[in-house]
Amino acid sequence: MSVTAAKGFTAAGIAAGIKQNGNPDLALVVNTGPRRAAAGVFTSNRVKAAPVLWSEQVLKSGQISAVVLNSGGANACTGPRGFQDTHATAEKVGEVLGRGAIEVAVCSTGLIGVTLPMDKLLPGVEKAAAALSEHGGEKAALAIKTTDTHHKTAVVSRDGWTVGGMAKGAGMLAPGLATMLVVLTTDADLTDAELDKALRDATRVTFDRVDSDGCMSTNDTVLLLSSGASGITPGYDDFADAVREVCADLGRQLIGDAEGASKDVKVEVINAATEEDAVEVGRSIARNNLLKCALHGEDPNWGRVLSAIGTTKAAFEPDRLNVAINGVWVCKGGSVGEDRDLVDMRYREVHIVADLAAGTETATIWTNDLTADYVHENSAYSS
Amino acid sequence: MSVTAAKGFTAAGIAAGIKQNGNPDLALVVNTGPRRAAAGVFTSNRVKAAPVLWSEQVLKSGQISAVVLNSGGANACTGPRGFQDTHATAEKVGEVLGRGAIEVAVCSTGLIGVTLPMDKLLPGVEKAAAALSEHGGEKAALAIKTTDTHHKTAVVSRDGWTVGGMAKGAGMLAPGLATMLVVLTTDADLTDAELDKALRDATRVTFDRVDSDGCMSTNDTVLLLSSGASGITPGYDDFADAVREVCADLGRQLIGDAEGASKDVKVEVINAATEEDAVEVGRSIARNNLLKCALHGEDPNWGRVLSAIGTTKAAFEPDRLNVAINGVWVCKGGSVGEDRDLVDMRYREVHIVADLAAGTETATIWTNDLTADYVHENSAYSS
Repeated sequence: MSVTAAKGFTAAGIAAGIKQNGNPDLALVVNTGPRRAAAGVFTSNRVKAAPVLWSEQVLKSGQISAVVLNSGGANACTGPRGFQDTHATAEKVGEVLGRGAIEVAVCSTGLIGVTLPMDKLLPGVEKAAAALSEHGGEKAALAIKTTDTHHKTAVVSRDGWTVGGMAKGAGMLAPGLATMLVVLTTDADLTDAELDKALRDATRVTFDRVDSDGCMSTNDTVLLLSSGASGITPGYDDFADAVREVCADLGRQLIGDAEGASKDVKVEVINAATEEDAVEVGRSIARNNLLKCALHGEDPNWGRVLSAIGTTKAAFEPDRLNVAINGVWVCKGGSVGEDRDLVDMRYREVHIVADLAAGTETATIWTNDLTADYVHENSAYSS
Repeated sequence: MSVTAAKGFTAAGIAAGIKQNGNPDLALVVNTGPRRAAAGVFTSNRVKAAPVLWSEQVLKSGQISAVVLNSGGANACTGPRGFQDTHATAEKVGEVLGRGAIEVAVCSTGLIGVTLPMDKLLPGVEKAAAALSEHGGEKAALAIKTTDTHHKTAVVSRDGWTVGGMAKGAGMLAPGLATMLVVLTTDADLTDAELDKALRDATRVTFDRVDSDGCMSTNDTVLLLSSGASGITPGYDDFADAVREVCADLGRQLIGDAEGASKDVKVEVINAATEEDAVEVGRSIARNNLLKCALHGEDPNWGRVLSAIGTTKAAFEPDRLNVAINGVWVCKGGSVGEDRDLVDMRYREVHIVADLAAGTETATIWTNDLTADYVHENSAYSS
């Protein structure tokens, strides 16, 4: 279902030959209207890929007619030539669809520092346009995979309207604002300002709290397109809730397919003085390599949780900290708590609760363990 | 030579039975005078081990008569009981040496969250005191090892005076202020204020710029003790230079023996607007897991260097960044530079230069690659 679950969208995914192994590598998503309101959030990495710089310009009008996405090359750190290539891609899409290039968002993912094979990409756009279909969402989701082992889609339908989407991402997975490549579509009829608010509200507590490996991408992009084809304008809170649900679903899928990971780790920080404190502490725990190794070894090593908390500026007293791992309070009052041998670590999902005993705020960060497979995948493969 | 290279010090290293494998685990360093001026820097982790809290109190007098160090247990996150154990250890050392407990610094290293076996540690203090010798420096350095594969010592001798020291540390190696356990001794005659300034000036540009795995310890301690036994008071700059030389030597040894590492990586940031910018960028590069995996795979992946720089607040323009790896400028003007196939990555030492083209300041951070051996050591072993 993916991006074509909502009415008013067509999509396609094809093999243009950008990837040397012949796998699908080019996706096209087209808004057939009647409306074309859109919103987007992008990486906060200051080294931004050419397609990010382009799509930020496109979004200034609050309208997107189509999104073209390629895997097999990030078109990041490619200089003026890279930006020209992105522009030429948008021009080509505009030409075959009979739209202006400035209505076409572009997303790329793959190796940094390599220019795209435009002799394959541009003919690929024609091939994708010819394959556009109201049932093309799955194929589009397949074509944006890089090291993902499976494609990621999510759909929420409510009273006559739908929000759906697709995502890719398996490494360099620690968005500062958005994450990876995500395209969301809806047939609900909303203004670009409403879409923007709903999207920012959702990504702040979903994608922005995914931190698999602490490495922020140069290409992260999340787009939300509205066709208005349902003819329905839902209440804002209801719509924002649906967008958040789709984002949370896709974010959870990203963590579940992270490179080399054997554990999905939910780090829940409770009783923080502020939400910012809770996020800072959660992220510090999520980025602690020693803890991530211990979790891989199914070792409920709460000492590494405390040493991670201790590096933050959050409000807390060391002798009031409590930590639970999979429901066992292994650390109480900053010292030894319940018997660590009671912790059952056999399952893929691990739940860490860090109680700061400093207030009432909370935040949850999702991360993964650190494994030899992650090292292998990222040392043997240039990505 | 180690801590007994300077005149006016005795030391010992013995097996007290704290480590279950019977290896040496207790070291004692005694200042035999005539002076006892001392300085120290400690972890900036807010979760501090009991011995750190104790030794900070000892330093308030500016004097240290003896340092007792144990491996086999960090005595961190052990509550009031842990602090009582540290106090009892200092009392025991004071008793056998005929000094006050408040003149005795205590250092511990090993597993967090486990109390020390005092029934073995206290008799061990008597055994160590009986073994004190002017040639005991090497044995003391051996007794503080945990996952270190070899002991670390360094000595600088100048006109009639000497600075020597020992260090341990192989993981949880990313000091915020000091690092690991380090004891430096000198027979030069200086005040505690002069020692303090020389030590802070040295650690700021040596241990504080070692970042093996981004994980800050709860126990980091660097102590500098002066016996004054040479009867010489060198010029401050000369002395500070010797202290910095010993610290840099020990810091380099820590990186060279980091857990599981196959590469020692010198990250040199040049042409930064400020020294703070250079340090922030260097640390961001040093902590990037994807880059560290690539270096392990001998892949000169400059795109990951740029993506790490892009997450900082430092002053730079993306299209003016240059990156050299082992002397080859693989990235110029934020884009593709010289042929990456020219980079020879076969040797253990890797040299990355990140040119921010934003000023004249510079800083160097030392780190390691990320390997499957690191994951194995820290998942199979609870530390």
